[in-house]
Amino acid sequence: MSMKETAVRVKEAAIRLSGMDGETKNKALLKISEELKNRSSDIIKANEEDIRRCEEENMAAPLLKRLKFDEAKIEDVCDGIKSLVNLNDPVGKTLLSTELDDGLELYKVTCPIGVIGVIFESRPDALVQISTLCLKSGNGVLLKGGSEAMETNRILAGIINEAAVAAGIPANWIKLLESRDDVNEMLKMDEYIDLVIPRGSNEFVKYIMDNSRIPVMGHADGICHLYIDDNCDIDMAVKITVDSKTQYVAVCNALETLLVNKDIAAEFLPKLKTALEAKNVIMYGCSDTLKIIDIAPATEEDWKTEYLDYKLSVKITDNMDTAIDHINKYGSGHTDGIVTKDKEKAVYFMNYVDSGNVFLNCSTRFSDGFRYGFGAEVGISTGKIHSRGPVGLDGLLIYKYKVIGDGHIVDDYSNRKKTFKHRNLNREFPLK
Amino acid sequence: MSMKETAVRVKEAAIRLSGMDGETKNKALLKISEELKNRSSDIIKANEEDIRRCEEENMAAPLLKRLKFDEAKIEDVCDGIKSLVNLNDPVGKTLLSTELDDGLELYKVTCPIGVIGVIFESRPDALVQISTLCLKSGNGVLLKGGSEAMETNRILAGIINEAAVAAGIPANWIKLLESRDDVNEMLKMDEYIDLVIPRGSNEFVKYIMDNSRIPVMGHADGICHLYIDDNCDIDMAVKITVDSKTQYVAVCNALETLLVNKDIAAEFLPKLKTALEAKNVIMYGCSDTLKIIDIAPATEEDWKTEYLDYKLSVKITDNMDTAIDHINKYGSGHTDGIVTKDKEKAVYFMNYVDSGNVFLNCSTRFSDGFRYGFGAEVGISTGKIHSRGPVGLDGLLIYKYKVIGDGHIVDDYSNRKKTFKHRNLNREFPLK
Repeated sequence: MSMKETAVRVKEAAIRLSGMDGETKNKALLKISEELKNRSSDIIKANEEDIRRCEEENMAAPLLKRLKFDEAKIEDVCDGIKSLVNLNDPVGKTLLSTELDDGLELYKVTCPIGVIGVIFESRPDALVQISTLCLKSGNGVLLKGGSEAMETNRILAGIINEAAVAAGIPANWIKLLESRDDVNEMLKMDEYIDLVIPRGSNEFVKYIMDNSRIPVMGHADGICHLYIDDNCDIDMAVKITVDSKTQYVAVCNALETLLVNKDIAAEFLPKLKTALEAKNVIMYGCSDTLKIIDIAPATEEDWKTEYLDYKLSVKITDNMDTAIDHINKYGSGHTDGIVTKDKEKAVYFMNYVDSGNVFLNCSTRFSDGFRYGFGAEVGISTGKIHSRGPVGLDGLLIYKYKVIGDGHIVDDYSNRKKTFKHRNLNREFPLK
Repeated sequence: MSMKETAVRVKEAAIRLSGMDGETKNKALLKISEELKNRSSDIIKANEEDIRRCEEENMAAPLLKRLKFDEAKIEDVCDGIKSLVNLNDPVGKTLLSTELDDGLELYKVTCPIGVIGVIFESRPDALVQISTLCLKSGNGVLLKGGSEAMETNRILAGIINEAAVAAGIPANWIKLLESRDDVNEMLKMDEYIDLVIPRGSNEFVKYIMDNSRIPVMGHADGICHLYIDDNCDIDMAVKITVDSKTQYVAVCNALETLLVNKDIAAEFLPKLKTALEAKNVIMYGCSDTLKIIDIAPATEEDWKTEYLDYKLSVKITDNMDTAIDHINKYGSGHTDGIVTKDKEKAVYFMNYVDSGNVFLNCSTRFSDGFRYGFGAEVGISTGKIHSRGPVGLDGLLIYKYKVIGDGHIVDDYSNRKKTFKHRNLNREFPLK
């Protein structure tokens, strides 16, 4: 089947799927979970094949670990599906209802976006999470996973498709793409695909943006900051900095640059240095920092770097405005926090830092769809259109305006025979 | 100033503007309205200069009419500003509040998108509407109007900028671009500009999408349909069809293709023909239609055409599913309606027609931000990401996740010393 034929079929299926009730979608999700468990030995066998191939190709150990999909991972994704089932159907929610005039009513009602193209990295659990999020939100999905996980992805997509269709979901709602050529073809299908979600490096996301008319829900680097205010609990500041930097270094919500108010630097930095050295963190400081603690000097490049490693850049700032300017200049709009006892400063910081997640007195590592209680996430968006921050079901929805009339025509309003009322009805869309 | 310097300054101003309270923004809006009235003779003089130049260049009469900006138009835009003032501040609304754990709270709070680039056609009132919508929603704005309206746009942008700044809005929040080169440069400024709204032809919107990484809120053609069900009030169907087609033909929400159920065609079409002929509408029919009424034959091209004229294509369909398939294939996702007495068919149609606006028993011409009661509109989006249908203030907003903690770290949750509660708080963000 050509990419265009594939896209056309997924779009047709997506339109049928968009009108399905929550019960059918939940039945399908439960069936998927059941089948994933029933066929776990086949899945594990396929995954072992992928791992064997990648070992032969000398893949690095951390990547092999991400690729591994065992009994425990199957349990995890099935738990995720269960939490999705427990969420209300996000489709068909009335967001606005207005009586335009007697017998003429406007409703703004949530609906699926349509067809989502997702390009994801090597972890096979991403395939299960993304496809079940798409199903719950009523979207068709084209998936392209890492070629390392080819066998695992193939069997997972097959099981998910069969189980969903057996439960009444239209055939062709999900398609797995396997080649890079398919991805390039997919990017041209703006007539059939409504949104592309690339999960990968900054460069990869930019490549997608440069090569498609389809809107992209992207994910730039996570260059996350903490600003330590002079009016703060120093022990708390140390604790939050250590957690933000070291709790898991290889992730986008880990801390990369610390900004310290000049009036607290002399007291705070030596304590921090001791705590970070205990975790083997290498610090890079601005010239003012170097006057207080003996660490390596930071260069301009450090402020722009997502280390994803046991490394931290440190800068002393004259005041909060300088810190905010630094964050808005060098940050990636991901997650930035302040540690302060001063409520007014917190309000100011959280208003003027232009990031998807702005935190007061807690670790940047909380920036995550599961921790936020969204059940699952498609990714974390550093864009500012449609969805920002961790993206759950909401990010896969849009709305329709539904208008109910009784023979109403515009001419009556243009001629001033009738006038609009625009009264808030505050009720659900009545036609079900 | 280079385009990059301009963009940097507007971004800086936009960040200051994003944190301003509703009162200051309203004061600025009122000041703008006051100054537009105070300086109306200067504005009209500038507009007369534009008109004189365009007359010399033999501009067509309908375009000259759009360009004209007189006392009445100034009144209109000032009325628009007044209605904006009366709307609540859309910034800072809490959309979600969750207690993640004791003392750790998540809030999803609306905020401006940042910097909006708008490219609009010759009507100078668009400049006033768009810039005041951006101000009310706290966004910086780069504007490029039609060169025909150069003098009018220049004086309007000057007055709006001066009045707003006098009322306390940061300088540089609005910039007028004057050359096409500026637009091409603007499209490269994805680091500083968050959204581009092009108002113009389909081709123009596609050109923008192909030449920028910045997300585009676009507007495709309006190929709007009505489906006349066999179970309907025929007089109502005629009335709605006539209004949808003829109330104003040169607009995107006018009817272009009529789909008629085969079981009502013989009764309905002759009546419709009489009514449309009285309005000088030329009809183009499918082969089945031609067996009933004597009109010109329709070609495949007709189903894809936005006439914007006194022309209508007519197709007889076997059933509602065929009609829905036709709409989803040939339509532009703008506005499509059904005329029926059958509630279940209405529900089905409104679910499965994949358009921003789906109507029951009323004219397609109601699809409009003012008629919907949004106060003003930036445009009508036929995209499915971020905003769909008429776009008012809501389309210029996004949100931030604000998290308040008290020294919380992720390590405690990874170690299972603590667990998340995820309890809905149902309250406003408390730090103001």
